[in-house]
Parts: sequence; structure tokens; C-alpha cells
Amino acid sequence: MKLSAEQMERFNREGYLFFPSLFSQQEIKTLTAEVPSLYAQRRPENVREKTGDVVRTNFAAHLYSYPFAKLARHPRMVEPIKQLFGEDVYMHQFKINGKAAFDGDVWQWHQDYGTWRADDQMPEARAMNVAIFLDEVNEFNGPLMFIPGSHRQGALPAGHDTSTTSYPLWTIDHDTIAKLVAQGGIVAPKGPPGSMILFHGCLVHASTSNLSPWNRVAVYLSLCAVSNHIRRFKRPEYIAHRDFTPIATLPDDCLLRDYDVALPWKDGTPESAMKTEMAA
Amino acid sequence: MKLSAEQMERFNREGYLFFPSLFSQQEIKTLTAEVPSLYAQRRPENVREKTGDVVRTNFAAHLYSYPFAKLARHPRMVEPIKQLFGEDVYMHQFKINGKAAFDGDVWQWHQDYGTWRADDQMPEARAMNVAIFLDEVNEFNGPLMFIPGSHRQGALPAGHDTSTTSYPLWTIDHDTIAKLVAQGGIVAPKGPPGSMILFHGCLVHASTSNLSPWNRVAVYLSLCAVSNHIRRFKRPEYIAHRDFTPIATLPDDCLLRDYDVALPWKDGTPESAMKTEMAA
Repeated sequence: MKLSAEQMERFNREGYLFFPSLFSQQEIKTLTAEVPSLYAQRRPENVREKTGDVVRTNFAAHLYSYPFAKLARHPRMVEPIKQLFGEDVYMHQFKINGKAAFDGDVWQWHQDYGTWRADDQMPEARAMNVAIFLDEVNEFNGPLMFIPGSHRQGALPAGHDTSTTSYPLWTIDHDTIAKLVAQGGIVAPKGPPGSMILFHGCLVHASTSNLSPWNRVAVYLSLCAVSNHIRRFKRPEYIAHRDFTPIATLPDDCLLRDYDVALPWKDGTPESAMKTEMAA
Repeated sequence: MKLSAEQMERFNREGYLFFPSLFSQQEIKTLTAEVPSLYAQRRPENVREKTGDVVRTNFAAHLYSYPFAKLARHPRMVEPIKQLFGEDVYMHQFKINGKAAFDGDVWQWHQDYGTWRADDQMPEARAMNVAIFLDEVNEFNGPLMFIPGSHRQGALPAGHDTSTTSYPLWTIDHDTIAKLVAQGGIVAPKGPPGSMILFHGCLVHASTSNLSPWNRVAVYLSLCAVSNHIRRFKRPEYIAHRDFTPIATLPDDCLLRDYDVALPWKDGTPESAMKTEMAA
């Protein structure tokens, strides 16, 4: 899978690329089948919604779940990112976001790079966000909303919102959002399970609550250029990874066939992954 | 304005009718110009959002605001309802819902007739809901969502949710919603300011939060068949009206020309309107 010059240009202009149905239903089923048992685990990697026991986000499944460990090395996902950055990448963050039917809460307007810079001391916005749909995304189950072109602003000032949802987030003020939307509008890519979005670490995005009876589970990855690795370990390792080894991709059929991958956290989260450095 | 046989049949089948751009931009401007001063008033008719000072809903403006008093008597809104019910109607409830940019919170899945029956002892579901858009409604500013055909279930069991938002609501459980959506799907009519929706008192509906920078102010009216007037005054009069006089319509140009209408609450909410009967 190689991006065309037109795709590269579009990414630079709009800050995202959408690939409907990039993975087959058969491939996606190997992942969705694994989610309930992941969400049922009592481990720090499962962050639950304010309203109760429903999982809002699960971290680092690629270190303890076989199908997700293979997804983390999938060439259809990794190769375009290497092409855009012109160098090898490592896994900075790996999440499965629930956005559960009826209970899925909002994610306020934010840039991911804001957090990576403030908390992790990532030098530049050379980490790519990836969203892979495990469920269909439609207008009713809380699709990701982007402000096209907003990534060209670089890192915007942000405030730390610790009260709106169960997950603290560096969010962008209303006046700035209104100005950016006046320029770029809002888009919300929708599509069947297996669709993929690549989006810039500075692209401003949000998602509304999910009141529909349809789950909207998606995998969110952040792959960082190896030379741009984080400099501080302020957040636990299951949130911001500390292994900067370049990802070695598996063959294209890896979700449907057996390949040997390491599952180092299979028996639990190591003590060391919970240790953090304080702010300087 | 007269509904066709096809429109009558569609209303009975789906539970709603959508009229894009029924009112002109010039007509709507006479209403929107009035909203800020209404929302600024400190009177019990303004219910504010949990997050602060933003108005979630304003009640009974037709009793103290001249342009809204004329809207309450508009033939394009009143005549189709009289046609569907085959008798005169009175104003049961009059609301202007803010759904403000960034702050507009969700309305959970509910039927309006559930409340009218439980609280107001309205004998049958012969009251019509009307939504008139004062702002454009698009996929990002929290459009009304309907489950087509759900009105044919009649009044469904509901639980009183007093915690999710700042406004207590009789809401319908998740299993029932999932079943209804499996049959009827979800629709969300969108359109320019001046569009109108008529929907059945038993049609199940909801709306998500508004994270966009676009306000979504809409007028929500409930017009009840005169013979079906409420039997109990458990709620304050500014929420559930007690004057069952049939609405006398004004001419079609009433929003653009001066007509004589009464504004009985212009100088404040009367004491008597706050008095309520307790449950039997």
C-alpha cells in the first residue's frame, strides 16, 4: 500500500486521509471477537465511563492480546505512515475506545499533540493518529469530527479539563474552535467496520455522545517517528510507551493467519510500567 | 395550508412530517431577534444548563413576547394540526430550546405524552408536537432524532431521570429503544431556519449534545385537541397551560405585519401560575 502524490498533498492540506473498508469484515471479526474479554479484565488499562462500569477506553492491548498485537504490525496501517514521515515509526499509544451504545460520552475539542508535548515532551508533531473502525460509524453513534486544515496551526494553547468526562484532557477554548470552523468547517468520516482514518497529531477533533443503540468501538493508535521519541515518562507506560524500537511489519494477511508475536504483558502489567517521572 | 391525503397517511405511518423552509428568513428573523433578551431575563420560565448560565429551555414566551405571541397563532402551524385532529386546539406547552453551541446537553430518549399523561392527566395522545427551526439544523449541532413508527406503540413504560441533565425527564429503557430502532431505524431531519416538523406525542425522540460552534435554537410547541385538555395542574402553569380556549389564527402574513395580540404575562409571571396540585 503506497500513497499517491495526490493523497500526500491532500494529507498536508486537510490533515487527514480516509480509507473506507481498508480491512475486510473477516479481518475485523478477529479483532471484535476479542474485545469483550479485554473489557471484562480488571486491569489499570481499562478506564471506565463516569456513569458506571462501561469501558471508555482500553490501553495497550497490543502487549497482551494476540490479534491486536498483529494489528499493531499491519503493513496497510504502518507503511503509509512511514511514507509520510520518511522514517521508521514506533508505537506511542494504543487504545480501543468503546463509545458504547447509550453510554458513550463526549470527547471535547482537542489536539493529541498538545498532550504529547505537555506531558511526554515529544519534540515535534511527527506522530500520526490512526482510527480503525471495528463497528460501523454513522451519524448517530458519535463519529469523530475533524476541523480540516486546523493542523496547520501547530500546537494551540489548551486548558486541562478534568471534570467534563471520566478522562482528563487538554482542550481548546470555544473562541478558537469557532474561528477554525469558520475557516475549515467540520467533517465526520463515516463508513463500515474496517475503515481507517489517518490524521495529523495537530488536527483538532472531538466526538459527541452516543445515544444510539449501536456500539462504536474503534482502535486509536499513535505511531511516532523514531527520531521524535518522547523525552519524559510522566504518564504510565501503558498510556505513553517507552519502547522506541521500530515496528517490524508482518505480511498483509497477518490478521487471518498465524504469526509469531511477543505478548510481554500477557500475565499482567509490569510494576515498572506504572512508575512515572514527575514534571520538571 | 392543507395536508394532502399522502401526507396524512405518512403522518399516521411514520409519526412525523417535515416541512423544510416553511417560514421565510425574513419571518424567522423577527423571532431570533427577540431570543437574547428573552434568555437574559431572570424569570422562572428560563431553565439553565447544568454547566452554568446558558439557557437550556425557555417557557411560555407567547404570553410575554410579541413576535412569539403571533407565532403561536400562525395558520401555517395551526391549520395542519386542526386538520389532523379534526377539531380545535389550544396551546398546551410553548418552549424555546437553546441547544447552545458547545454547551447544549443531550435530551434522552423519551415520548412527550408519557409526561403529559403521568403529570398532567391528559386523557389521550391527541396533542401534537411542533418544532420550528430558528437556526439551521445540521448533523453537528444536535438535531432531533426520531424512531419512525414508534408512536404506534402508544405510551411506553418510562422511568423518571432526574440526574442526567438539568431538566427531569421520563425516559425509556435501553432494551426498548434497541428493539424500536431495529424496526424503524433513526432519522434526524435537517434543514435551514424556518423549517418545521410536526410529530406525534408518542413518537420516541432524543437529541445529542451540541459540541459545534453553531447554536441550534428551536421553538417547540405542543398543541392539544380542546376536548383532550389536561385534567390535573401538577406542573406550574408556565410549563403546562390551563387556558383551553381554542387558538384563533391570525392571517398568513402575521409575522411581518402588526396585529393585536394579548401579552398577559408581560409584567411578570402571575402568582397563580406557580401554584400546583399535588398528585392524587
